[in-house]
Amino acid sequence: MSGQQQHPSAPRALGILGGMGPLAGATFALRMVQLTEAAVDQDHIPTILCNDPRIPDRSSAMLQGGESPLPAMQRGIRLLEAAGAGCIAVPCNTAHLWFDDLKGATRLPVLNIAEAVVQNLRRHSVVQGKVGVLGTPATLALGLYQRALEQAGYEAIVPEANDVQRHCVASIAAVKAGQIDAAWEPAAQGIRALVARGAQAVVLGCTELPLAVPHHRRGEFDCVLTDSIDALALAAIAHCRQQH
Amino acid sequence: MSGQQQHPSAPRALGILGGMGPLAGATFALRMVQLTEAAVDQDHIPTILCNDPRIPDRSSAMLQGGESPLPAMQRGIRLLEAAGAGCIAVPCNTAHLWFDDLKGATRLPVLNIAEAVVQNLRRHSVVQGKVGVLGTPATLALGLYQRALEQAGYEAIVPEANDVQRHCVASIAAVKAGQIDAAWEPAAQGIRALVARGAQAVVLGCTELPLAVPHHRRGEFDCVLTDSIDALALAAIAHCRQQH
Repeated sequence: MSGQQQHPSAPRALGILGGMGPLAGATFALRMVQLTEAAVDQDHIPTILCNDPRIPDRSSAMLQGGESPLPAMQRGIRLLEAAGAGCIAVPCNTAHLWFDDLKGATRLPVLNIAEAVVQNLRRHSVVQGKVGVLGTPATLALGLYQRALEQAGYEAIVPEANDVQRHCVASIAAVKAGQIDAAWEPAAQGIRALVARGAQAVVLGCTELPLAVPHHRRGEFDCVLTDSIDALALAAIAHCRQQH
Repeated sequence: MSGQQQHPSAPRALGILGGMGPLAGATFALRMVQLTEAAVDQDHIPTILCNDPRIPDRSSAMLQGGESPLPAMQRGIRLLEAAGAGCIAVPCNTAHLWFDDLKGATRLPVLNIAEAVVQNLRRHSVVQGKVGVLGTPATLALGLYQRALEQAGYEAIVPEANDVQRHCVASIAAVKAGQIDAAWEPAAQGIRALVARGAQAVVLGCTELPLAVPHHRRGEFDCVLTDSIDALALAAIAHCRQQH
């Protein structure tokens, strides 16, 4: 199981730094299994999930000077490295505002969620034009996706200031409180507002948002929806399969 | 995050030895979150999931002399202990045929899935009478649940020999191959056959079976269904809350 004990040709495990929030972390671990083509257990990719929700709130730290989540995230990554992980995924968009520090905490590759989302847009044949982004206030204010999308040739559009609170924050807080049904309407309004402004695709750029917008209802929107949980899982599966 | 680094009053993490199969392991981690009452991330129970599917098949080892899964399971438990777990859950019923060896691999408490299922039957006000059991051939042949149920005052009934293959094995193999829809009918037939023989409750005594019988369809049966994933998650939540 650990790096020392396994056969040299065995695939290394994917280390998942979860807990941000815990429902997103566990859903990411589940989607890793569901999105992998496998006929029997032994064909699946080994994963180790550290789903510790005590990591201080990322948005508060970035925007209101709250306690930094970085030391707890660095400890989590070192724990995954010690447990034998060969690569790290962090299913939390806001945590990627500390991406360079997370990379600096380990000698392992750390997958980037915004790059995974751009790959996923291309997989859906969205190669240019307006792409809307929903996410936490911190992710939007610090431009995580705006930067990644513009570098890749898209035009990024984000919600109006009031709508960040009414749509994104309301939906994310409902998911974190386990009120999945209540999370749908604000997220749906957020998507519709971006489509009305010309977005051909919308990034669910907080790992709580894919939980608010269940797969079986995604056809109700007149746009491509890019799910940051699934995009990161697909990138992780591709990475682990290449390494093997 | 690890035992050494955290504050002495912080709750210890639940270590989850998953991978048997990986869908069950990830679903267990998800149900831990969904079944915990919490308003914000930080109220949830920290968990560490080792979801390594390379553990040799439990049924083959027990019934056909295949490679033993015990060394891989012991390594997994030691990994979870080193990562700071304070208690271990193993969301695989067949693995419990090695329960004494798993307990012997660690100084930590290891929760017992059959005891959790008996507690769950009582929670559903089933306190005596006939209880049916579905599970793997090994779990049924070695009497994991028959023993636990009879010690608790129930009369255990198990499928006829042919039905173990037609109902249990067919459904479990479909889940392991990701064919969740195909897993329903054999599992449903297995439940109905036990109810026809007088079972007032049926234990889904393999962690793949709760995935074959989705929550929203459980009202279709004229019996109580006890889900070994949820029963173990509820026992783990109660254990972790008491420790804190």
